[in-house]
Amino acid sequence: MTASRPQSSGPPATATIATIAGEVGVSVATVSKVLNGRSDVSASTRARVEASLERHRYRRRNRRQPTSAGQIDLVFHEFDSEWAMEIMRGVEAVTSAAGLGVAVSQLGGEHSPSAQWLDAALARRPLGVLFVLCHLTELQQQQLQRQLIPFVVVDTDSATSASVPTVGSNNWNGGLLATRHLLELGHRRIAIISGPQDVLCSRARAAGFRFAHDEAGVPVDPELVRYGSFYIDSGYAYGMELLGRPDRPTAIFAGSDMQAMGVLRAARQLGLRVPEDLSVIGYDNLPFAAWIGPALTTINQPLRDMAGTATQMLLDLARGAELSTSRIDLVTELIVRESTAPPADPTGTDPR
Amino acid sequence: MTASRPQSSGPPATATIATIAGEVGVSVATVSKVLNGRSDVSASTRARVEASLERHRYRRRNRRQPTSAGQIDLVFHEFDSEWAMEIMRGVEAVTSAAGLGVAVSQLGGEHSPSAQWLDAALARRPLGVLFVLCHLTELQQQQLQRQLIPFVVVDTDSATSASVPTVGSNNWNGGLLATRHLLELGHRRIAIISGPQDVLCSRARAAGFRFAHDEAGVPVDPELVRYGSFYIDSGYAYGMELLGRPDRPTAIFAGSDMQAMGVLRAARQLGLRVPEDLSVIGYDNLPFAAWIGPALTTINQPLRDMAGTATQMLLDLARGAELSTSRIDLVTELIVRESTAPPADPTGTDPR
Repeated sequence: MTASRPQSSGPPATATIATIAGEVGVSVATVSKVLNGRSDVSASTRARVEASLERHRYRRRNRRQPTSAGQIDLVFHEFDSEWAMEIMRGVEAVTSAAGLGVAVSQLGGEHSPSAQWLDAALARRPLGVLFVLCHLTELQQQQLQRQLIPFVVVDTDSATSASVPTVGSNNWNGGLLATRHLLELGHRRIAIISGPQDVLCSRARAAGFRFAHDEAGVPVDPELVRYGSFYIDSGYAYGMELLGRPDRPTAIFAGSDMQAMGVLRAARQLGLRVPEDLSVIGYDNLPFAAWIGPALTTINQPLRDMAGTATQMLLDLARGAELSTSRIDLVTELIVRESTAPPADPTGTDPR
Repeated sequence: MTASRPQSSGPPATATIATIAGEVGVSVATVSKVLNGRSDVSASTRARVEASLERHRYRRRNRRQPTSAGQIDLVFHEFDSEWAMEIMRGVEAVTSAAGLGVAVSQLGGEHSPSAQWLDAALARRPLGVLFVLCHLTELQQQQLQRQLIPFVVVDTDSATSASVPTVGSNNWNGGLLATRHLLELGHRRIAIISGPQDVLCSRARAAGFRFAHDEAGVPVDPELVRYGSFYIDSGYAYGMELLGRPDRPTAIFAGSDMQAMGVLRAARQLGLRVPEDLSVIGYDNLPFAAWIGPALTTINQPLRDMAGTATQMLLDLARGAELSTSRIDLVTELIVRESTAPPADPTGTDPR
């Protein structure tokens, strides 16, 4: 994998900072400020300098010296429960063994960082940046590449270009495994509450859900397909709505273990027993999933391994190595516990 | 609060690096390396230099320039579930508003950082360091003070000296509130599974537990007082043991919400209904506590506020301000939900 190494993405850079400054009609110091992500340059000047840098495919000749200790930047879409903690555990295992630090930040739910965030990150001079469930705009990718700062995306939220190194898990397969399990138990009215629709993994799981239905010759009721957030309250709200229907589903496939916890709460509130009256399957296999009541059947997503693999890729890129492969999806697995069982009435509860 | 400002902890520094180098008989460069936390100095030389620095109460004349963006170091005893995530949320809210980064690390369960960790942290040149459930040795405190790097401890694990700025919550009061609630419901055989005994907050809560019993004239059965870890498996193991006794308790006060989840699991496994056969009360009030079944009665520990307050103190110290107070305990509160109720037999189930 070479595409993310800036050197190979075009003809070798020949322009110097002076060339750029001359062309744009600004001082060398101004070009240098833009390159270093300093904010004391007007937006219009910055845009003209950026355009000229890109036209000349300007690249630093050498990596800037990182701060003496060396650290990477880890950026979350948001600090989302124990899910994010599992990612941090996987990252930290690799960085602490390598004697490196980790600067952690979150985008408050946004999927792309702000210009302010990027400027601050550039000023930290990280060895590399790990993005979790978020991505960079094309322009931001260029800004990092210009500084020879590599980046890797964990669990991409959208279809990124093939040149962006990415570590995820097989979400489509996870959706398939969960739905097959429910179909094999005899369920015919199965609901899915996936994650946000603008996030690729949510749509991939829903596609696996549909595929399993097609495979079994069971139609999908579009009324039973929902997209929520990954958090508990979303599972509760959709759970209450789906389970309040006269033709309620006999099984719900949730988008995360947290969301499944919300579904379990809705079931309890409506007097439905799990798994006797309703099967529930989660996603992620967070540490608590084995402990709640009933213990949650779920899809194992190897978050620590994903994070560790991505961190290793980032450190390889930072020392100038070429990656043998730029897109890795780790395997998802079905973990059967107590929250799934055959439906009470295998023909479904549709009263029509 | 001035004691943590190194300038005020002794006579003004008069020695220069050259004085120290001359006294120890090493080069100025070697003294500088020790000051900068570089590891390429032999242990014996470093010890001699450190001793001389301390003898002369050597202090930097000025703060070193932090890295251009500026960041703080946040150090956890360990990455412990959503508890640690709540702390991070509180820290990040303050640092991101101030345009600062956060370098996060953990000590893998140790309560004091290693020399390697401290060297790496010093090399990162943070504006300050926030320690969570861990502390520094005296020598390490001197190392940070010499660099004019302030530090604050969140939820101290032990009795730190009054000169160390600390933010916690009133653990003794939390233990009192939880136990009073159970006693007022009529429970007379109440078990406590606290956190690790070497951590101050665990012992403070157990002291509150005893005080509430004394207040009510109810004896504490020493067999019902246990110290575990804060994690789920500890709650499960002690839960199984306590609930398997012929004279089992009618209520259990757990050391954390995670631990309470393990107790709930043990109760389910033994066929005990909560709260009908057993009352369970947690600690922390993590976001999931309201959602599990039954929704958990717990003690609210304002983790985000604690972390935010500590971060603000750290930033105040970093800009040279004096703190009006160095030790803050935020208030703990009882949150009653579904997991506590009067005992089935208010005289207890002791068969003797």
